[in-house]
Amino acid sequence: MKKFVALALLLIAGPALADDYASDRAQIENLMARYIFALDWQDAEGYAATFTEDGVLHSGAGAQKGRAALMEMVQKLRAQDDKRNAEDKSGKEGKPRARHEVTNIVIDVKGNTARAWAYWSHYNNRNAERSATFDSFGHYEDELVKQNGKWLFKERRVFNERFPARAATDQSPVPKN
Amino acid sequence: MKKFVALALLLIAGPALADDYASDRAQIENLMARYIFALDWQDAEGYAATFTEDGVLHSGAGAQKGRAALMEMVQKLRAQDDKRNAEDKSGKEGKPRARHEVTNIVIDVKGNTARAWAYWSHYNNRNAERSATFDSFGHYEDELVKQNGKWLFKERRVFNERFPARAATDQSPVPKN
Amino acid sequence: MKKFVALALLLIAGPALADDYASDRAQIENLMARYIFALDWQDAEGYAATFTEDGVLHSGAGAQKGRAALMEMVQKLRAQDDKRNAEDKSGKEGKPRARHEVTNIVIDVKGNTARAWAYWSHYNNRNAERSATFDSFGHYEDELVKQNGKWLFKERRVFNERFPARAATDQSPVPKN
Repeated sequence: MKKFVALALLLIAGPALADDYASDRAQIENLMARYIFALDWQDAEGYAATFTEDGVLHSGAGAQKGRAALMEMVQKLRAQDDKRNAEDKSGKEGKPRARHEVTNIVIDVKGNTARAWAYWSHYNNRNAERSATFDSFGHYEDELVKQNGKWLFKERRVFNERFPARAATDQSPVPKN
Repeated sequence: MKKFVALALLLIAGPALADDYASDRAQIENLMARYIFALDWQDAEGYAATFTEDGVLHSGAGAQKGRAALMEMVQKLRAQDDKRNAEDKSGKEGKPRARHEVTNIVIDVKGNTARAWAYWSHYNNRNAERSATFDSFGHYEDELVKQNGKWLFKERRVFNERFPARAATDQSPVPKN
Repeated sequence: MKKFVALALLLIAGPALADDYASDRAQIENLMARYIFALDWQDAEGYAATFTEDGVLHSGAGAQKGRAALMEMVQKLRAQDDKRNAEDKSGKEGKPRARHEVTNIVIDVKGNTARAWAYWSHYNNRNAERSATFDSFGHYEDELVKQNGKWLFKERRVFNERFPARAATDQSPVPKN
């Protein structure tokens, strides 16, 4: 019986281990997508909820630490955009919008922590025709933690190729496999 | 023995439950990618096959319900493009092409149904140099069902930021977690 | 006892089979993202490591077969870019960069081999403002193998819509489901 238990555990653990990465990756990809919807629609609460309580964003605006600071940052972005849109003289119906795309997501998982790297690009339709204009790009470097079965950002660093001080170096940020 | 069976089932069910989301997400991501290849290459049959028999697409062309209507829509797109390409005076070899990119895929699964939200952007090379020109963007809101173990679109709604009547609202379409 | 073993194996195999696709897809997506980081940062070793020992890349530069040839190709790309950047007269601080985005990843797995199809698009900031300029797009057609539990490219074919000789045909490369 003991042998059988050991065998059964081995059989169960085999696929479970193999599938852990898929399971973690699926949740982290979903988190990254939720992050962007919240950012682009300036949903301050939804945005802050993708971070741990003490999560930190490092971006052009400096470091924002903790959910309260993260919410405030997004609320300010919304206020700025509302003001800019109110002053919009393009004469075209509807509001101009700006959006981020995230691709090339590399994720390394180690137990309840993970590191991730991904590309972002950004476009807007702030013009009379509301046609798409590509404007900037860069990459993210992330540290994530799994808390109560849920993956969250602990730290997200935003690199931006438009600004030399915030651009990537010559060496790929992704470590060797 | 009964205790062991219960324990074994628990052990098996644990990882299985944890992996269900990964499994569903993997299949839905693949479906979304197949949808785009079929749309951009105007493969009417392949496109319709990503929907349920009574699936509906809500787009700028109105609502297309059922696989026959969906196939007809894609066949018309192909005819339009063939005509436009035949009239192309750019003088450059090869045919102009247009493509969609899908990113930021949020998927919520509930048993055999799922809701999804994703970004799309669109570009073409309809110019003398066949260089890439970004033209429009928006998002999808989807309802999916799993039929005979296979995920399919039940309803897909296309939002397009080029047209105010089809643009997103100020509130993120993704519900709170 | 034998009956129970059979039942347990069935229960274990059920979810394991269902999750195999998710597991393989997660690893292949990660490989595809690692490929792009290595390509865009011109990390020759990291790039070659995404292929099997005898892996082949078919691109505008012809066929590169084997890790040594793949490394050499990337080293040459780096030398070309270093030279071009050294001669850059834009007067803007920082180096111009170019990046690829991969989306719409279709993956069909059959045991330890897989076929995949995906979109790529490309942009750069080789201008005085370091603003993003979209430049080209196409798709990949891949054959992959799982060696020692690790997915690798066996062959990757790059199609590019900028050059008629390397463009896609009118028929979607993705086979019927």
